[in-house]
Amino acid sequence: MENENRYQRGLAKLQEIDGEAGERVVASLEDIAPDFARYLIEFPFGDIYSRPGLDLKSREIATVAALTALGNAAPQLKVHIHAALNVGVTRTEIVETIMQMAVYAGFPAALNGLAAAREVFDYT
Amino acid sequence: MENENRYQRGLAKLQEIDGEAGERVVASLEDIAPDFARYLIEFPFGDIYSRPGLDLKSREIATVAALTALGNAAPQLKVHIHAALNVGVTRTEIVETIMQMAVYAGFPAALNGLAAAREVFDYT
Amino acid sequence: MENENRYQRGLAKLQEIDGEAGERVVASLEDIAPDFARYLIEFPFGDIYSRPGLDLKSREIATVAALTALGNAAPQLKVHIHAALNVGVTRTEIVETIMQMAVYAGFPAALNGLAAAREVFDYT
Amino acid sequence: MENENRYQRGLAKLQEIDGEAGERVVASLEDIAPDFARYLIEFPFGDIYSRPGLDLKSREIATVAALTALGNAAPQLKVHIHAALNVGVTRTEIVETIMQMAVYAGFPAALNGLAAAREVFDYT
Amino acid sequence: MENENRYQRGLAKLQEIDGEAGERVVASLEDIAPDFARYLIEFPFGDIYSRPGLDLKSREIATVAALTALGNAAPQLKVHIHAALNVGVTRTEIVETIMQMAVYAGFPAALNGLAAAREVFDYT
Amino acid sequence: MENENRYQRGLAKLQEIDGEAGERVVASLEDIAPDFARYLIEFPFGDIYSRPGLDLKSREIATVAALTALGNAAPQLKVHIHAALNVGVTRTEIVETIMQMAVYAGFPAALNGLAAAREVFDYT
Repeated sequence: MENENRYQRGLAKLQEIDGEAGERVVASLEDIAPDFARYLIEFPFGDIYSRPGLDLKSREIATVAALTALGNAAPQLKVHIHAALNVGVTRTEIVETIMQMAVYAGFPAALNGLAAAREVFDYT
Repeated sequence: MENENRYQRGLAKLQEIDGEAGERVVASLEDIAPDFARYLIEFPFGDIYSRPGLDLKSREIATVAALTALGNAAPQLKVHIHAALNVGVTRTEIVETIMQMAVYAGFPAALNGLAAAREVFDYT
Repeated sequence: MENENRYQRGLAKLQEIDGEAGERVVASLEDIAPDFARYLIEFPFGDIYSRPGLDLKSREIATVAALTALGNAAPQLKVHIHAALNVGVTRTEIVETIMQMAVYAGFPAALNGLAAAREVFDYT
Repeated sequence: MENENRYQRGLAKLQEIDGEAGERVVASLEDIAPDFARYLIEFPFGDIYSRPGLDLKSREIATVAALTALGNAAPQLKVHIHAALNVGVTRTEIVETIMQMAVYAGFPAALNGLAAAREVFDYT
Repeated sequence: MENENRYQRGLAKLQEIDGEAGERVVASLEDIAPDFARYLIEFPFGDIYSRPGLDLKSREIATVAALTALGNAAPQLKVHIHAALNVGVTRTEIVETIMQMAVYAGFPAALNGLAAAREVFDYT
Repeated sequence: MENENRYQRGLAKLQEIDGEAGERVVASLEDIAPDFARYLIEFPFGDIYSRPGLDLKSREIATVAALTALGNAAPQLKVHIHAALNVGVTRTEIVETIMQMAVYAGFPAALNGLAAAREVFDYT
């Protein structure tokens, strides 16, 4: 029952944060790893993003920063730039977050992050 | 003159953010790469952290997130956990930011980030 | 209730795999992030390692390979070299797995992985 | 002569593991770095994969795990998902290995690994 | 004035090193982060590449090595393979640099670096 | 015989480049993975560093750049800073190479690389 709660809470949080993009990620897992779709809803969204103690805007800034710095997960970076906009982070704040990553992960990481942001902004 | 401004602005920003820890980093470069100490003040602090458009709390959350996710820069992560506290990020917000990195960079990255936070919290 | 099951299942799996080393990791989180200790038991051990479809020996080989290749999580690599021994992976198989990482992540990653293995073997 | 042996042994092992995909990698190097094609056959395949002490199934699980975790070598990950199938790793075992990487390298790494697996499975 | 000098010095250095490719990178930032275009000219090119103490050929070898090893910045690797040719690094030296990265970052990193080199060589 | 040649050529090259530090690395592998010591001599040193087409100074600059950028192999970075000095790279050139990595892998990578250089310079 508690786990049913986690799932429902995670699903609602995923929709609040990612909207349709989140649903597409989940749907894309149906054929190959349906249980992983469930874990994705339960742990990141039902557990982590549902926690008090850090507001959603700050959580998305943290995620955009980390994925820009890692530089090896472009699809997820775009989903979370979109998610950041969804929860009220401004375009300026997103661009500032990505630019700052030049300091911590180098200029190429920031340049590729800005290219991802441009793609998301163009379709929003 | 403008570059003099960048340096002075960067030095003030470094002291505002990192306090003595920032000064120690700069001092440690004097013997081996004094110009790099200057660049460190000018670009990250004089240029990036001095920009409007993203508040300092959010900037430190972004940096703690990125350094936790990268997982290969423990000394700088500790400096920025300390800096985050300095600019008003709470211990809870720091712990939440680091925990969230389990989702984006794995549990070991988050565990090592929490170990860094414990070290900083113990001496603060 | 199901989540209670996840926790209990995870705790049993953690003890089966990591023995005391796992308990020390959990204990070390008590002061700073007790909820993270719970997530660590629930998701990696209650969900992932408890799944059928891949035997525990193969799971530990996968983990030792990944942590050697990433090269930025020495404490967790040592825990899992120990765990690999616990679930029946031989010293030879561990050394072969780590050596193979020279091909995928370079010789330094493999050398540092072998150094971790030596430390674990010496205390086992 | 011994090196001739390494080359022949490596070529046979490459064909056993990767089949035509391995040959295509080697052929693609002919114009730009033919010696590198030779090293690729000799060291990874003639030396490492030809060693006793770890069976080929476990070796491919280790490689799929590492390349999923690193997240920056999609072409090689696909070659080795194919190779894993070739040496008898089941689709289920491959999916389990990749899902487990969410624990060690984050959910984006696992999601991108599953996308690579789907591509390989669709053409097999 | 000094900063005006940095900008002009950086612009001249960027054109010397990257030619039109550098201008395209700068132009691509105009809509989304024009200040970042300025930083890119000022810090990497106006400060770092303009320093005495290491010749431009060695600087480009260092950059090609690093970007090949990191393996997550293909567009920038191609720009710098082109830049290396521009400042007098031979094709052979570029290929040797990339091949050597197999030792430090694994064979996939080197293979993907060679693929980038082939693309640049084909259009040069 | 050819392989005997590779080994002898690699051993001579290792001694030329790394001196005693290289011998210590090899000796440290004797108990845990003696074959890996042989591979380390044969492939990186017997094959790669023995190739014409890129001089040893440039090869060490490339290696110092890559290991600084990767940021997860401090022991090997120190060995190669020492090796760079051995083959005629100046302290200034080493410091310049490491500083430049701030552009491609961020300021923390460069700061930790400079700390490694200071340690090596102090004992040389």
